Amino acid sequence: MPRRKPHGLQTFPNRSPERDYLVRHVAPEFTSRCPLTGQPDFGTLTLEFVPDRLCVELKSLKLYLLAFRDQGIFYEAVTNRILDELAAVLKPRWMRITTDWNPRGGMRSTIVAECGQRPDHQA
Amino acid sequence: MPRRKPHGLQTFPNRSPERDYLVRHVAPEFTSRCPLTGQPDFGTLTLEFVPDRLCVELKSLKLYLLAFRDQGIFYEAVTNRILDELAAVLKPRWMRITTDWNPRGGMRSTIVAECGQRPDHQA
Amino acid sequence: MPRRKPHGLQTFPNRSPERDYLVRHVAPEFTSRCPLTGQPDFGTLTLEFVPDRLCVELKSLKLYLLAFRDQGIFYEAVTNRILDELAAVLKPRWMRITTDWNPRGGMRSTIVAECGQRPDHQA
Amino acid sequence: MPRRKPHGLQTFPNRSPERDYLVRHVAPEFTSRCPLTGQPDFGTLTLEFVPDRLCVELKSLKLYLLAFRDQGIFYEAVTNRILDELAAVLKPRWMRITTDWNPRGGMRSTIVAECGQRPDHQA
Amino acid sequence: MPRRKPHGLQTFPNRSPERDYLVRHVAPEFTSRCPLTGQPDFGTLTLEFVPDRLCVELKSLKLYLLAFRDQGIFYEAVTNRILDELAAVLKPRWMRITTDWNPRGGMRSTIVAECGQRPDHQA
Amino acid sequence: MPRRKPHGLQTFPNRSPERDYLVRHVAPEFTSRCPLTGQPDFGTLTLEFVPDRLCVELKSLKLYLLAFRDQGIFYEAVTNRILDELAAVLKPRWMRITTDWNPRGGMRSTIVAECGQRPDHQA
Amino acid sequence: MPRRKPHGLQTFPNRSPERDYLVRHVAPEFTSRCPLTGQPDFGTLTLEFVPDRLCVELKSLKLYLLAFRDQGIFYEAVTNRILDELAAVLKPRWMRITTDWNPRGGMRSTIVAECGQRPDHQA
Amino acid sequence: MPRRKPHGLQTFPNRSPERDYLVRHVAPEFTSRCPLTGQPDFGTLTLEFVPDRLCVELKSLKLYLLAFRDQGIFYEAVTNRILDELAAVLKPRWMRITTDWNPRGGMRSTIVAECGQRPDHQA
Amino acid sequence: MPRRKPHGLQTFPNRSPERDYLVRHVAPEFTSRCPLTGQPDFGTLTLEFVPDRLCVELKSLKLYLLAFRDQGIFYEAVTNRILDELAAVLKPRWMRITTDWNPRGGMRSTIVAECGQRPDHQA
Amino acid sequence: MPRRKPHGLQTFPNRSPERDYLVRHVAPEFTSRCPLTGQPDFGTLTLEFVPDRLCVELKSLKLYLLAFRDQGIFYEAVTNRILDELAAVLKPRWMRITTDWNPRGGMRSTIVAECGQRPDHQA
Repeated sequence: MPRRKPHGLQTFPNRSPERDYLVRHVAPEFTSRCPLTGQPDFGTLTLEFVPDRLCVELKSLKLYLLAFRDQGIFYEAVTNRILDELAAVLKPRWMRITTDWNPRGGMRSTIVAECGQRPDHQA
Repeated sequence: MPRRKPHGLQTFPNRSPERDYLVRHVAPEFTSRCPLTGQPDFGTLTLEFVPDRLCVELKSLKLYLLAFRDQGIFYEAVTNRILDELAAVLKPRWMRITTDWNPRGGMRSTIVAECGQRPDHQA
Repeated sequence: MPRRKPHGLQTFPNRSPERDYLVRHVAPEFTSRCPLTGQPDFGTLTLEFVPDRLCVELKSLKLYLLAFRDQGIFYEAVTNRILDELAAVLKPRWMRITTDWNPRGGMRSTIVAECGQRPDHQA
Repeated sequence: MPRRKPHGLQTFPNRSPERDYLVRHVAPEFTSRCPLTGQPDFGTLTLEFVPDRLCVELKSLKLYLLAFRDQGIFYEAVTNRILDELAAVLKPRWMRITTDWNPRGGMRSTIVAECGQRPDHQA
Repeated sequence: MPRRKPHGLQTFPNRSPERDYLVRHVAPEFTSRCPLTGQPDFGTLTLEFVPDRLCVELKSLKLYLLAFRDQGIFYEAVTNRILDELAAVLKPRWMRITTDWNPRGGMRSTIVAECGQRPDHQA
Repeated sequence: MPRRKPHGLQTFPNRSPERDYLVRHVAPEFTSRCPLTGQPDFGTLTLEFVPDRLCVELKSLKLYLLAFRDQGIFYEAVTNRILDELAAVLKPRWMRITTDWNPRGGMRSTIVAECGQRPDHQA
Repeated sequence: MPRRKPHGLQTFPNRSPERDYLVRHVAPEFTSRCPLTGQPDFGTLTLEFVPDRLCVELKSLKLYLLAFRDQGIFYEAVTNRILDELAAVLKPRWMRITTDWNPRGGMRSTIVAECGQRPDHQA
Repeated sequence: MPRRKPHGLQTFPNRSPERDYLVRHVAPEFTSRCPLTGQPDFGTLTLEFVPDRLCVELKSLKLYLLAFRDQGIFYEAVTNRILDELAAVLKPRWMRITTDWNPRGGMRSTIVAECGQRPDHQA
Repeated sequence: MPRRKPHGLQTFPNRSPERDYLVRHVAPEFTSRCPLTGQPDFGTLTLEFVPDRLCVELKSLKLYLLAFRDQGIFYEAVTNRILDELAAVLKPRWMRITTDWNPRGGMRSTIVAECGQRPDHQA
Repeated sequence: MPRRKPHGLQTFPNRSPERDYLVRHVAPEFTSRCPLTGQPDFGTLTLEFVPDRLCVELKSLKLYLLAFRDQGIFYEAVTNRILDELAAVLKPRWMRITTDWNPRGGMRSTIVAECGQRPDHQA
């Protein structure tokens, strides 16, 4: 039974804590709003991590990401905040968030942030 | 004559135990069920290993994987469980399981787990 | 509230200064003028940096780049000047500017300039 | 005049034993039979080696490979057996056999086996 | 104001000598003549360099390259001569000339020559 | 004036012996005959070398390669013989011959041979 | 409020019956079973139709297709049966079902069946 | 000066009513909500039309499409409603709306609706 | 229950004889032998037909095609014979056999034969 | 001697008026400004025509197109105006202008306008 967490994120126990393994979730429909104009931004968010004692339940992750749909927030801030919040809940051995944003004003952007010890044999 | 194993997995002796060599089986039609909703999940499962004394018979591997068709299980759990069970039966020098899942709720996922000593000259 | 800077560049505080992370903005519609003939040049400008205390606001970056539309300036000069000005405003831990220019007189050109310490795990 | 060998493999002297060089033969029409069902399997077999005193004559290699057309044999066994037999005949400085098999039961397989000292500057 | 140089090459001062940066000019319409038959050769010439105190003005570079249109000269010679002449004029920290020639008599050729210390972080 | 050499190969002096540079000639229409059946073989021959005091004149290289059109010779032998003969004439600092052969009997082959000290910064 | 139909298919009124328009639903995860061996088959099912008075609700369509997951049925039969059942429920102006099946026994199959008057300007 | 229309759509006079010409606007970031679950849907909306007396101003079109961001509506309904509303405002000689939807429940969908006389020489 | 036919081909009743629909089976592993040399030939065989009262069972079709594995027969003959035999058994409204052969002696071949009335709206 | 025309367009006589032939000029660096915001727009403009008595001189065409760089004008208007002005000057048998615009506000646009009799065998 997944446990309910702050931000609505649900976790379930990692049943294989004895080994380092990689989890990657790619959300190509991420959307938030520009904090200055309120216009929607669209991009692909990639979450990669090596779990320690907890994994994240997919539907709650989807709902967690959906909650940014109407939030005004800078690209850099949303990337780091998701890293902070997911890392706080999951306490992973390593985690990386990458956001690739659709063009705005003729410019496209990418933000990459990570924490923890990058695994040796990462796929 | 392949020997019958728990989980229905059949093995046959590795006739070339004197050398490290790589075996890769790719199953693009893997399917199991979401443990929360019961909805079917679909993905590609890749098994790679360096055999020690035993190889896995392909048809029994196919039937073993088919047995997950109606099982409710998380992506992370099924990946690690298949690694555990195949490693327990085959006792390989090295083994890796990769699962690439079709999008669910607009998100696609990948899990990569391995055990043993990764070979030097892996193809 | 972004602070107004020389060159019209606006910044906002980096809320995650405790970690190195990568920001990349790609502007495929960059245009300036040849300093000798006044003819327009077109190219793709890529800005990559690891922020320290400041990030750059996207719309002001766009307007800053638009200001070169009628400026006569060599490829090398505009690349280095943008690096100098952005680095002066943002004081990043690392920064790189790459300009890829459309063919002129049958020749296409690329200029790459950077400053600071290139990060280890750059995406 | 090529010398006739067991398995019908013919060799001819390597006229350049003073240097390490690479020979690669790719046979995309390899076929054998499943040892359990007798059904034909199809795949691409790649032979790579650094010759010592002997090279393999191509037509005899083709006939040697054709002889597996009606043989019931596991993927792993046929790959290692061809490596063993070719290595026994050619006594190469290094040799690798790769077999890539068409899907059976929805699964596709690859086996990679080698012997000898992998050359430094292999093309 | 660019200064006029031997060979008609014009230079302008490198305004950012404090940093190593890369300049690449690709001329896909380079043409000279075969020194034996007088037939025209066509190819792509790529100039890459890290400027020291001088950059090369693009139009004069184009005219300089155009001057080879009716010159009979071997591929190797023209590649090295352009490297020599440009290096003499620009005195770069590093320079490389690559010429990729269209097929002649069913053969296509490439010549690569460089001088100076190849930069560490070359893009 | 190129000097006439055994095998009809003509050379001309390397005017830039003070530097290591790369020369690559690709002949996609190479043809010889099978030494056993007399049937024609077709392939792509790639010559790469770092000249010392001599370069090879292209037309004579073409004629030299054409002379194999009616010669019965094994893939391995022709590759090494061309390496031997060209190296004897050109005395390069490094040289490599690669032959990629069209399928024969459903098999395609590649031979790679080289001599001398492979250059550090080979393009 | 969608109305419940036999087979669990739910419909909702077509609000634009005054015009012919095309609806296409592609289900790349369709699976049923072989009626002879019970082994699962996998394929992509494409439903195209021009609605008359009714459209099909997507989730009920998904559940309807999922119901074939454990049914033993020939490719031809399942294609025509889905056409029959959907046409009976939706009474479309035109409908086409295409099934593209993954390889079985080294063979891949496609079945295409349609009913009604194919529209003139079908996208 | 564009005139304000119901739905916030702004138009401006077609200055070339004497000829049939094609206008195509592609919006790859279209999003609405499922009318049953409230979950967001994502897709690409393509508007094509031959203007008569009015064209549509782009920013107002963008805002008009953004207004569906929080609306629960079926794929078929939103496609036809946008066709109805745009046709009512613009009174085009011909118009077509195509919506291509991201996968939901493993299924991807396309709806194509048009009105008016399709032009002969449509690009 | 499929009925057994001459050549081992099994059929089952077409349950939708009231409509014309297309069946396509593609066998990329077809192999027979050259009637002159006995050497194996490899190719892709495509069977397309509009069934009348009978369909062909897939496994028996696979076995029927496998029976050519050791038969010496010309490309043209095998294509027409399979068309004759399948048409005799299935009595289709229309049938076409296409064989695409791997290169032999540097030449690749295709044979296309059909019988019956080609359907109007063939997919 | 090209004759100077209004708009700076220069023409020269078509020396082959006895035949219909196609001329296509593609300008991937076209830029104008939004008439409402003044922001620059970027796109690719394609001019295609069948000349009657006059052709357009390329440099004057380039300068003519450059004159839109600072003009505020709608996509539809600029496309039709260029068609009008070029057609007025060149009086072609047929002419088509296509503009493909970079994304603005997440939307990309295309306008296609033509006049005259479209040639039968248009490339």
